[in-house]
Amino acid sequence: MSVRIGIIGPGGIGRSHIARITDKLARGRVVAVTDIDPAHAQRVADPIGATVYADDAALIEAEDVDAVIVTSFGPAHEGSVVRAIEAGKPVFCEKPLAPTAAECLRIMAAEQRGGRRLVQVGFMRRYDAGYRELKAVLDSGDVGEALMVHNRHRNPSSPENYLEGMSITDTAIHEIDVMRFLLGEEIVSARVDKPKRTTNRFPHLSDPLVLVLRTTSDVLIDVEIFVNNTYGYDIGCEVVAERGAVALGDQNAIVRTGTAGRSNRIAADYNERFEAAFNTELQEWINSVQAGEIVGPSSWDGYAAAVVCDAGVRSLRADGSQEFAVELIEKPAFYA
Amino acid sequence: MSVRIGIIGPGGIGRSHIARITDKLARGRVVAVTDIDPAHAQRVADPIGATVYADDAALIEAEDVDAVIVTSFGPAHEGSVVRAIEAGKPVFCEKPLAPTAAECLRIMAAEQRGGRRLVQVGFMRRYDAGYRELKAVLDSGDVGEALMVHNRHRNPSSPENYLEGMSITDTAIHEIDVMRFLLGEEIVSARVDKPKRTTNRFPHLSDPLVLVLRTTSDVLIDVEIFVNNTYGYDIGCEVVAERGAVALGDQNAIVRTGTAGRSNRIAADYNERFEAAFNTELQEWINSVQAGEIVGPSSWDGYAAAVVCDAGVRSLRADGSQEFAVELIEKPAFYA
Amino acid sequence: MSVRIGIIGPGGIGRSHIARITDKLARGRVVAVTDIDPAHAQRVADPIGATVYADDAALIEAEDVDAVIVTSFGPAHEGSVVRAIEAGKPVFCEKPLAPTAAECLRIMAAEQRGGRRLVQVGFMRRYDAGYRELKAVLDSGDVGEALMVHNRHRNPSSPENYLEGMSITDTAIHEIDVMRFLLGEEIVSARVDKPKRTTNRFPHLSDPLVLVLRTTSDVLIDVEIFVNNTYGYDIGCEVVAERGAVALGDQNAIVRTGTAGRSNRIAADYNERFEAAFNTELQEWINSVQAGEIVGPSSWDGYAAAVVCDAGVRSLRADGSQEFAVELIEKPAFYA
Amino acid sequence: MSVRIGIIGPGGIGRSHIARITDKLARGRVVAVTDIDPAHAQRVADPIGATVYADDAALIEAEDVDAVIVTSFGPAHEGSVVRAIEAGKPVFCEKPLAPTAAECLRIMAAEQRGGRRLVQVGFMRRYDAGYRELKAVLDSGDVGEALMVHNRHRNPSSPENYLEGMSITDTAIHEIDVMRFLLGEEIVSARVDKPKRTTNRFPHLSDPLVLVLRTTSDVLIDVEIFVNNTYGYDIGCEVVAERGAVALGDQNAIVRTGTAGRSNRIAADYNERFEAAFNTELQEWINSVQAGEIVGPSSWDGYAAAVVCDAGVRSLRADGSQEFAVELIEKPAFYA
Repeated sequence: MSVRIGIIGPGGIGRSHIARITDKLARGRVVAVTDIDPAHAQRVADPIGATVYADDAALIEAEDVDAVIVTSFGPAHEGSVVRAIEAGKPVFCEKPLAPTAAECLRIMAAEQRGGRRLVQVGFMRRYDAGYRELKAVLDSGDVGEALMVHNRHRNPSSPENYLEGMSITDTAIHEIDVMRFLLGEEIVSARVDKPKRTTNRFPHLSDPLVLVLRTTSDVLIDVEIFVNNTYGYDIGCEVVAERGAVALGDQNAIVRTGTAGRSNRIAADYNERFEAAFNTELQEWINSVQAGEIVGPSSWDGYAAAVVCDAGVRSLRADGSQEFAVELIEKPAFYA
Repeated sequence: MSVRIGIIGPGGIGRSHIARITDKLARGRVVAVTDIDPAHAQRVADPIGATVYADDAALIEAEDVDAVIVTSFGPAHEGSVVRAIEAGKPVFCEKPLAPTAAECLRIMAAEQRGGRRLVQVGFMRRYDAGYRELKAVLDSGDVGEALMVHNRHRNPSSPENYLEGMSITDTAIHEIDVMRFLLGEEIVSARVDKPKRTTNRFPHLSDPLVLVLRTTSDVLIDVEIFVNNTYGYDIGCEVVAERGAVALGDQNAIVRTGTAGRSNRIAADYNERFEAAFNTELQEWINSVQAGEIVGPSSWDGYAAAVVCDAGVRSLRADGSQEFAVELIEKPAFYA
Repeated sequence: MSVRIGIIGPGGIGRSHIARITDKLARGRVVAVTDIDPAHAQRVADPIGATVYADDAALIEAEDVDAVIVTSFGPAHEGSVVRAIEAGKPVFCEKPLAPTAAECLRIMAAEQRGGRRLVQVGFMRRYDAGYRELKAVLDSGDVGEALMVHNRHRNPSSPENYLEGMSITDTAIHEIDVMRFLLGEEIVSARVDKPKRTTNRFPHLSDPLVLVLRTTSDVLIDVEIFVNNTYGYDIGCEVVAERGAVALGDQNAIVRTGTAGRSNRIAADYNERFEAAFNTELQEWINSVQAGEIVGPSSWDGYAAAVVCDAGVRSLRADGSQEFAVELIEKPAFYA
Repeated sequence: MSVRIGIIGPGGIGRSHIARITDKLARGRVVAVTDIDPAHAQRVADPIGATVYADDAALIEAEDVDAVIVTSFGPAHEGSVVRAIEAGKPVFCEKPLAPTAAECLRIMAAEQRGGRRLVQVGFMRRYDAGYRELKAVLDSGDVGEALMVHNRHRNPSSPENYLEGMSITDTAIHEIDVMRFLLGEEIVSARVDKPKRTTNRFPHLSDPLVLVLRTTSDVLIDVEIFVNNTYGYDIGCEVVAERGAVALGDQNAIVRTGTAGRSNRIAADYNERFEAAFNTELQEWINSVQAGEIVGPSSWDGYAAAVVCDAGVRSLRADGSQEFAVELIEKPAFYA
């Protein structure tokens, strides 16, 4: 009765998915694990009694695997996802769907050949209570049409291997997806503005950045990306509409009063801020696998985000603040 | 591997427990149902494939029932809980443990005869992220010792069958328990102050009320109880300590800005405000049943709350604002 | 064209009144000073070119003194205020009007003999934008009738000469007055609840305290008084009414985000929190002196506050938490 | 002893300056009025006993006029301000100093010929407690260097005669000045991004807009300008620095709780939001006139704002989102 799940490439996020499926969510069970490091796979599999497979192909073909979660390194995604599609098994793929638009297009082609949606991409912001309530307010029509969105995505610090373009492809990709979700429109251009750099971290990194996006109907979106703010994981989103504005709340459990004044804590990291969203995301995916109909963010969403990231990275690398067009293929009816 | 659970008397709260065990939580399964109305039991059991039993005794004895949840009418609690204890099965009993101190004492006696803790009482505030963080701050010693606590417990409206004493026994009982949890002390006296009454509802009801409690070390607690505030379910708690104050935050998902100003929504009811706490409560109970050691609020906690309620109700019924002592039996080492 | 003002007994508050009249307010001028310490009077008078008088009688009689401000030690108030009344000159007297009800009654008798209102008492909370807006909301009828009011009055620390009863007579007196103003009703009883004491300061002081008041129509008021909170001057007031609640806002100029989270500063002292109220209070008094009609808090208000304080102090000195009646004389039509 | 002030062109803002000088501030007196409509001048002058002059030249030359306030239509500013300078009288000129950079330069030339600062421009944001506290935090070094600033400037509605460029020259000019004040740097470029337009008002107007500025040290500033938000006067400013962020607080006097949730009121207009800043601005100007040294925003500040506005308007009128350089003359030592 439970959905039997195989995991490919369980690093940090993969292990936290295993933990939530095992300890917090209903109707899912992790029964299979594979990893390029077999010893690592074994260490992950043992405590939950899962079977270790030699590679993704073997795991995907296993009879007792109903569905697959891909949390391996980005460049490995395409292979595993396409294999799962070809085996007719639902596959949950962590973001990015794939590092390049070309890979995403091949995944979409495979999925369309199969004739039914099997892929869900791990854009977990769509499952956060805050963004969902923002969307509900917008969809209600109470505030008229959205005109602008101001976002902030701040992290306390970035590791040394966090390279230039990752501000877009690894960090802002969440806003890129959730803006498409919130507004129900595609993004048509991207531009990066480079403010004064912080002196707190690596000189190789242009940090902070402001990513400016524009949608089909001309909604203007700005995303402040600041990955070395020194103080916490600080996420903000304010939608300015014709007759009012709606913003994410701080969602604080407590308020302290003391010599620091009246204060709310800032989340330490994305796990703390979005833990509930991760749980909702995977529970809804398990439910949709059981129901036989995948409804979460699709390959198209993964592809669209990749193309926007491309445009953003091009602007980041260009001199000054140049705007680059986002050129999507026509959306297949399959993903309508 | 799942805990197989039988439910006795599934009304509103019981059915919501069934729903969360089935759809949201890990490692639990509802396999048995009984109710004084057998047709109702059947309607509840069918969608989840559970078995209907003729009465609580039959359900408790069923071999495939590992643990029991009691959500029947308060006066029926003692019988079911004692039967579960005698069968050696863990039992989760919704609050109140029983309407009178005498019944609670008999439950405690049965549990102690059995020689191990089997009872958990449904005081779900202890599982709310806000109260837990308040407790963590107090326990850290950062703010010194608690001196006072100000609580508010406001409901939009009360039904016609909500009688006088229920402001204490049904509503404030949550604060009574969570204050004991937060402060780690017993309550030694209770007094009720009666403010001007609202004209919005039934003249039979003295609403609002202020319940004033005092703990062993003289912490002064006030609880505003207002069950017809017309606007929402509004819960507040501020602990004033020697070197600072800590209070529940509003935990709002979004902030709106419009002609009503900058505004946060108030929860509509306890389900909205405390849904996450209910989930945590039951998941931790299921985990503890599996682990073979019940750690949640105990029969002693149910008994202590009942005795405080008694003193509160006596003060409510007395003229003026008289203080009544809370007289507990000596705490059995069993519950230490 | 300016109102020419004489000051009797300029200590800290007196000098800050001189400064605001001189540097911030319109249409007032301090022309005369007297003090029991003539050298002090001279030091105060010199920078503003005011004349020093030997005593209050001489200052009051001076031809170029249009109105008088009394900021001397409380026990000296009656003499100066009555003298000003007898000279037919408007007199602004800092709170308390006088330390005892008997003195207040003599002031009222003198004022009534004179046949017109000449006395204003320095209850400056009535001039704070927050309390004024609270009152406007209540008076609008939008939220129905007030049922309860929760107040907090917290100070970072109290000096060694701050004695037991001063929590009521010096600190809570502000809430006592502003509650009468806000609700437009007299207070009919007072009770003091004594929570666990802070260990941070003098053992002679019972700190914090909760003062519980009741008005004619049974509105229940609680005032938390905590004069050694270690962190700041923290004033709160929430009026709970039949159809909503209204509370003082924090009125913060800025919000900081950093390792202490998202935080608002707490005011350091009453000067910072209520500076604007002090300015408004004196400007409106100067305006009313010019207009020839005193409209601020009257001798009656000073008397009523003194009687409530008396009841509060009696409760503070009694064992346990006893309620004491507040017994006012019938209100003279003169003060209607 | 009071500063005797003459007003040239008292429209709405001029009359509110007269009211505050007369009724709220110390040491100033309006003694002279002139207006292109002599009947209007008479109506303004009568209640305060001021003299009406035929034109600005006559008013400026009047012996009993110590200082001048210019609140006439922008194109008339240069003439009056230069005349006041040539008469050696301090002149407070409402913003803009003049509509074009050329006029501002001529004012600066006249002032420098005179050899001492006589001009103050009415940039009142610098006197707001919020911006001042932001600046104090930045200047303290606590949060490191500013990297970005996010501003919002929203108005409920704009009148029909509010033309395209006024979003910059009339509205955002306040942020342009206060950013220079806050950061202590010049602005070197301006760009306008045009979001989707609101349908709530005149089709001739591109509303909202985002003005993007860059300073000498590369601080990136965005200013959302939305003059038909339908709900209120909503001003925001968040400075993001290397080690924290600081933002304007909401400064609300009260918080309401009701069916609209927990809500703070938004100011209706700039008078409500910035009344205290206007008072501080004029009081400090009067003080500086008395002290013989003008210290507020200078002609240079008026000129610099005009040049930034020019660049902004050019970008607004250009296709797409083009950046325009802000080309200032070298700053005269006179204004250092």
